[in-house]
Amino acid sequence: MARWQADTEGRLKLAAIELFGTHGFEAVTVSDIAAAVGVTERTFFRYFTDKREVLFTNQDDYQARFLDALLASEATAPMTLVEAALHGGAAFFADERRTWSRARQRIVDSSAALMERESLKRSSLTDALTTALIAKGVAPVPAALAAQSGSAAFHLAFAAWIADDETRSFTELLDDVLADLRALLG
Amino acid sequence: MARWQADTEGRLKLAAIELFGTHGFEAVTVSDIAAAVGVTERTFFRYFTDKREVLFTNQDDYQARFLDALLASEATAPMTLVEAALHGGAAFFADERRTWSRARQRIVDSSAALMERESLKRSSLTDALTTALIAKGVAPVPAALAAQSGSAAFHLAFAAWIADDETRSFTELLDDVLADLRALLG
Repeated sequence: MARWQADTEGRLKLAAIELFGTHGFEAVTVSDIAAAVGVTERTFFRYFTDKREVLFTNQDDYQARFLDALLASEATAPMTLVEAALHGGAAFFADERRTWSRARQRIVDSSAALMERESLKRSSLTDALTTALIAKGVAPVPAALAAQSGSAAFHLAFAAWIADDETRSFTELLDDVLADLRALLG
Repeated sequence: MARWQADTEGRLKLAAIELFGTHGFEAVTVSDIAAAVGVTERTFFRYFTDKREVLFTNQDDYQARFLDALLASEATAPMTLVEAALHGGAAFFADERRTWSRARQRIVDSSAALMERESLKRSSLTDALTTALIAKGVAPVPAALAAQSGSAAFHLAFAAWIADDETRSFTELLDDVLADLRALLG
């Protein structure tokens, strides 16, 4: 799928997503995934705590991109700080990740338990953005509003980015949604 | 607690919330609630499908207040339509409901399962607002952004309204948060 994940962990992820896509998330076992890559279950568990974890790896790295960009910004306006954070997060979704993200999202959307985990992940990002804005001196209510509006914009851009036949970059799509957000109240 | 709920359903709700508050949501049974009001379990089940339902009743009526106000509005700007919806919803939280809402929220916040149900209820409201905006002619992305930002504002106003010692009306608090929202992007 992509050269940036040719290691064992990457091969396990690719095998898992292919198997989940073909047989459904519930039907695939850790043993199936390990066998597809030619490693033992024990090797699988060196990288992931369970099969669900394969879809939710890199979460700290993901969130750090938003927070690092926010903390590095010299801006003081809450929405400008949030936009800096979102552009930091957008860099995570490089074009070579799009095929993986499409396949992953299809699997997440097929399972209520996975959707719930995804929703927690999004809330955790929004909470982290709110906390970072407050640390930058933004009052709690504007901080929460900016974080939640920004997070909504980011996930709308993500949905557009993984749509069939979409070829524009994540950043381009994000900028379109952010322009819509500014126009809403402008 | 309040005269507007002196019927059996209202008495069951008040007894339940008192028992949940004292003993914890998990520890209280339907039988306890029914006994506290002097009715049979069978009577309880005439009003509620389970003890969790006691905390999530009136949901259709609640959502209808937002949607009726939105549909009745003559506005075309998405944010103005959403504000009309939120003011419709605000009327649900009359001052005589505040004690109930405080007690209810304390119970919801004590249980991961109840918080999850609450979170679904909020998503369902946001989805309904998005759909209503689209029906009014708003494009999908601005509709989703306006619904999500507006919903965030509404729930921040709710959190302020049930804070200890807060006496301002829901509408007053909502208008403050909406002013913050406009200022964010203004």
